[in-house]
Amino acid sequence: MKSSSRRKFIAMAATLGTGAAVSAMPSAEPEKKQLVHHVFFWLKNPDSVQDRDKLVEGLRTLAQIPTIKKLHIGVLASTEKRDVVDTSWQVSELMFFDDLAGQATYQTHPAHLAFVEKYSHLWARVVVYDALGV
Amino acid sequence: MKSSSRRKFIAMAATLGTGAAVSAMPSAEPEKKQLVHHVFFWLKNPDSVQDRDKLVEGLRTLAQIPTIKKLHIGVLASTEKRDVVDTSWQVSELMFFDDLAGQATYQTHPAHLAFVEKYSHLWARVVVYDALGV
Repeated sequence: MKSSSRRKFIAMAATLGTGAAVSAMPSAEPEKKQLVHHVFFWLKNPDSVQDRDKLVEGLRTLAQIPTIKKLHIGVLASTEKRDVVDTSWQVSELMFFDDLAGQATYQTHPAHLAFVEKYSHLWARVVVYDALGV
Repeated sequence: MKSSSRRKFIAMAATLGTGAAVSAMPSAEPEKKQLVHHVFFWLKNPDSVQDRDKLVEGLRTLAQIPTIKKLHIGVLASTEKRDVVDTSWQVSELMFFDDLAGQATYQTHPAHLAFVEKYSHLWARVVVYDALGV
């Protein structure tokens, strides 16, 4: 929930009572215009659970960076096999930023630089997608 | 915000008063174990703003599918140019599901099938990433 919506919700809760506010709050609020930064990692040792877990551990250290509004760390999901699904990667990092500036700040944040220095030996390849909400 | 957390928040608001609840609520709640389904589209006419907007319009129709917990529709963001950033696509669809079953339900939902039938002529290539939260 965005802070502006949270404020509205609080205001509603105060005005209407919490019961009324629950039904008035949208269940899946669109987060418009946010920047999605999605990174996929291919490990040097793709079958190493230890290396996968180590990279996940490293990615968790990024959560301290304040411009990251949401962080989702993932591993390859076992969905149906289809030609269009890329199943060749091992670990993913999905971040939401409020704007381009937030992403730029993240790139040069000391915690991000420390992560790259400490964990980049684990991966052979990285692909990044940056998507702006419409 | 997940419904379980919303319930907790409501309970907190009722117990502590809304002012206290605001500071107690985490600002960036991790959504663990959710399934992220991220699709990137390469248009047949990559420079056509009209085709891009038409595809975005089509993607918005997917929001009605109840197993989609969050939908983020995006276009290529103008972040810094780096070798690792794929800037060759035009439109993206990012969805959160509670589990694998939710994603499977989406695949065969009539609204999804209608979307593919009506809008697939617009794209030349699709790549899908399915990531399970850890």
